[in-house]
Amino acid sequence: MPYVNIQVTREGVTPAQKARLIKGATDLLADVLGKNPSTTFVVIEEVEFENWGIGGLPVQEYRARPGSE
Amino acid sequence: MPYVNIQVTREGVTPAQKARLIKGATDLLADVLGKNPSTTFVVIEEVEFENWGIGGLPVQEYRARPGSE
Amino acid sequence: MPYVNIQVTREGVTPAQKARLIKGATDLLADVLGKNPSTTFVVIEEVEFENWGIGGLPVQEYRARPGSE
Amino acid sequence: MPYVNIQVTREGVTPAQKARLIKGATDLLADVLGKNPSTTFVVIEEVEFENWGIGGLPVQEYRARPGSE
Amino acid sequence: MPYVNIQVTREGVTPAQKARLIKGATDLLADVLGKNPSTTFVVIEEVEFENWGIGGLPVQEYRARPGSE
Amino acid sequence: MPYVNIQVTREGVTPAQKARLIKGATDLLADVLGKNPSTTFVVIEEVEFENWGIGGLPVQEYRARPGSE
Repeated sequence: MPYVNIQVTREGVTPAQKARLIKGATDLLADVLGKNPSTTFVVIEEVEFENWGIGGLPVQEYRARPGSE
Repeated sequence: MPYVNIQVTREGVTPAQKARLIKGATDLLADVLGKNPSTTFVVIEEVEFENWGIGGLPVQEYRARPGSE
Repeated sequence: MPYVNIQVTREGVTPAQKARLIKGATDLLADVLGKNPSTTFVVIEEVEFENWGIGGLPVQEYRARPGSE
Repeated sequence: MPYVNIQVTREGVTPAQKARLIKGATDLLADVLGKNPSTTFVVIEEVEFENWGIGGLPVQEYRARPGSE
Repeated sequence: MPYVNIQVTREGVTPAQKARLIKGATDLLADVLGKNPSTTFVVIEEVEFENWGIGGLPVQEYRARPGSE
Repeated sequence: MPYVNIQVTREGVTPAQKARLIKGATDLLADVLGKNPSTTFVVIEEVEFENWGIGGLPVQEYRARPGSE
């Protein structure tokens, strides 16, 4: 009966990639804890760049810093 | 002082239905726990079909399976 | 396929009250949106007083203010 | 390694204001708990008026009540 | 920079199982979306039985029903 | 009417530090967006070390790595 919430920046995640995330997270719960896939929810939230901060900066500014990932 | 978060798939929930969810959840907290409606928050999140998974599948594929709800 | 998260302060909510919250929230989603109870999750989170703030104060200080609820 | 989630109604929050929220929340965790900004996430969620309830009403109706904030 | 929140019922999940969930979710985001593990957070929340509802019932009552999973 | 959720590892955060987080987050929303403190909620969640992952590892293993923060 797990609930999994995945938050990522909104940058062109495709439906096929989302399906893989859903499948992968559901399998993970089944493999590790024996959870029933039919009662496993996965909810993906895509967050605009300007709404996600790291290092005290919106993510685009953070990534634009010299030496950042 | 409760906070209630309701996540549903985005499929044409009307403003009137949302108002009923807000009213209903607020009344529930008042009835069961005596919570003050003026400090009860209800936040509804509508999630795209492709972002919601159950049974290891995006919800539309899940619903399209033979015998599914 | 809704997911409902209810956050309240931890102050002696009984199992019977929790069961009423679960039943009430599930019924609400069924009544308003026709959602299937068998795929409706309700998760209750009880939050310590010192971890909940309102009006810029931990809830116990807030409630102790003259004229507060 | 904190994660901060800020939910506000969607009403024209500017990118500059979001940057100030991100900076302010990150600084707060650094100042109070000594948390490393480079592993502090801030995620802002903007919620439509009709999806946010208080006092048992959608926020716009709530604000339109006589004597409300 | 993903954030993954995994909610499960509290029923003896071991530290080793939690480590596998953390590793698995982090790998999933790296494999599917190329996300950097060093900025991927996974937060596991264990929820008491009486605080988790499905089918309008606390999970233990739900599981005790004839024919339930 | 903001709702702020702050998740940190559980490692001896004192009530006084929590009060500062609550005050700081509430002031931030008031300063940047003019939000009314009396309808600003701050909820702090303390997460066990073994339940928080970064870099694909539980946080304690992550911190124990050579060269980590």
